[in-house]
Amino acid sequence: MPQNIYDNEIFFQGYKRLRDTGAGLNDCLEQPAFRKLVPNIKGKILVDLGCGMGHLASWCVSQGAAKVTGIDISEKMLGIARERHSSEKIEYRRGSLEEFAFPAESVDVILSSLAFHYTADYNGLLKRIFSALKPGGYLLASMEHPVMTCSHFAAGWNQDEQGNNLNWRMDDYQHEGLRKGHWYVDNVERYHRTISTLINGLINNGFVVEHVSEPEAIPEAITTRPDLTDHSRRPPFLILKAKKP
Amino acid sequence: MPQNIYDNEIFFQGYKRLRDTGAGLNDCLEQPAFRKLVPNIKGKILVDLGCGMGHLASWCVSQGAAKVTGIDISEKMLGIARERHSSEKIEYRRGSLEEFAFPAESVDVILSSLAFHYTADYNGLLKRIFSALKPGGYLLASMEHPVMTCSHFAAGWNQDEQGNNLNWRMDDYQHEGLRKGHWYVDNVERYHRTISTLINGLINNGFVVEHVSEPEAIPEAITTRPDLTDHSRRPPFLILKAKKP
Repeated sequence: MPQNIYDNEIFFQGYKRLRDTGAGLNDCLEQPAFRKLVPNIKGKILVDLGCGMGHLASWCVSQGAAKVTGIDISEKMLGIARERHSSEKIEYRRGSLEEFAFPAESVDVILSSLAFHYTADYNGLLKRIFSALKPGGYLLASMEHPVMTCSHFAAGWNQDEQGNNLNWRMDDYQHEGLRKGHWYVDNVERYHRTISTLINGLINNGFVVEHVSEPEAIPEAITTRPDLTDHSRRPPFLILKAKKP
Repeated sequence: MPQNIYDNEIFFQGYKRLRDTGAGLNDCLEQPAFRKLVPNIKGKILVDLGCGMGHLASWCVSQGAAKVTGIDISEKMLGIARERHSSEKIEYRRGSLEEFAFPAESVDVILSSLAFHYTADYNGLLKRIFSALKPGGYLLASMEHPVMTCSHFAAGWNQDEQGNNLNWRMDDYQHEGLRKGHWYVDNVERYHRTISTLINGLINNGFVVEHVSEPEAIPEAITTRPDLTDHSRRPPFLILKAKKP
């Protein structure tokens, strides 16, 4: 059973505040790069895996998507999504990445923003995504970068006595698997996988890799939050775009 | 003009000793992974870019290659190659990655072991490689991993007072370009590029990415050199295999 941390009340309130205030990295770093890589979705059938509060599903409808199925494991997240981003073109469904399955060749584009690092079964997920996609269909997925997830115990910046970031600590890279860390609450579970595992997984499941992105903060955001430049010192996220031939 | 550090007498003697004693990472880590990824080369026309002392070119002939052109910028390296690994099936030529050009669609497989990080013009090199390859041909190239080349000033391990490696320092990731460092001599020039630049460069030039490898030391080597396990804490090399469709 995957962890459902977003339904933890303390986590949920912390995360909701993060997204509502725009203090996270989604709006200023991850989503701008992600949305530029979304293929043509006009009139297309989409799935949004780990849809959270529905920001992305709603944006896809604004860009002309015919139908978006937003799937998330958290009832609390889906509650917000239905409240704020409801649309006759969006169907929100509770479900996990582990259970995700759609009829073969029924979906044009599968999107997933910052959810893949929560699943233990990357390969199984890719198999089910590949099956669900129509030929010519796309998978676009962002995830925590392996340099962020790798360290078991030492993740973070080395800092000087004034608290300035000196450099990023990296360790345990080839040791894939579960990482537990503190994010609003203890023991938030994520899974570390190497760059080669992430990319070869796509290739071995039949995908053609079309683009790899390691986004930086957008310049407008850096104006008011100069600390965002530190995310250019080591990449926080990895975005993979792949096509089913 | 690219730097020709391998013709520096002090560098050359240091590097030659490294390779002759097997103290480097080539024999115990990079080449085992690299050679497993070499496609079928029986009866094929090959180019070895940055052939050095001819180890790889010679191995390719032993595996049935019909013809290998070994290209290196260093006369000293080519001198050793001609002395130790001469074969009627190998032609050693002096040349740089920057000048490399072969007639269009004349080569089956282009190999390059640990040379790509020396060129400033990755994109130009890929264009010329793509042109030289026959349709269905392969490029297989290993290079220093971006987590090794990224840091301008802080590359290396954080260590405790006993000199044990605590974690790897990472910095300056998105700032691509020239890095100067000490390796036998000062100011050895390498070029840092991100994972996304390295992979998208292949895709944008028409290649299909077939495999990505971040090799670890082979178990036999770790038996006598347990310190090699530290290379699993952060990957020293990246190997990319790509096909011209």
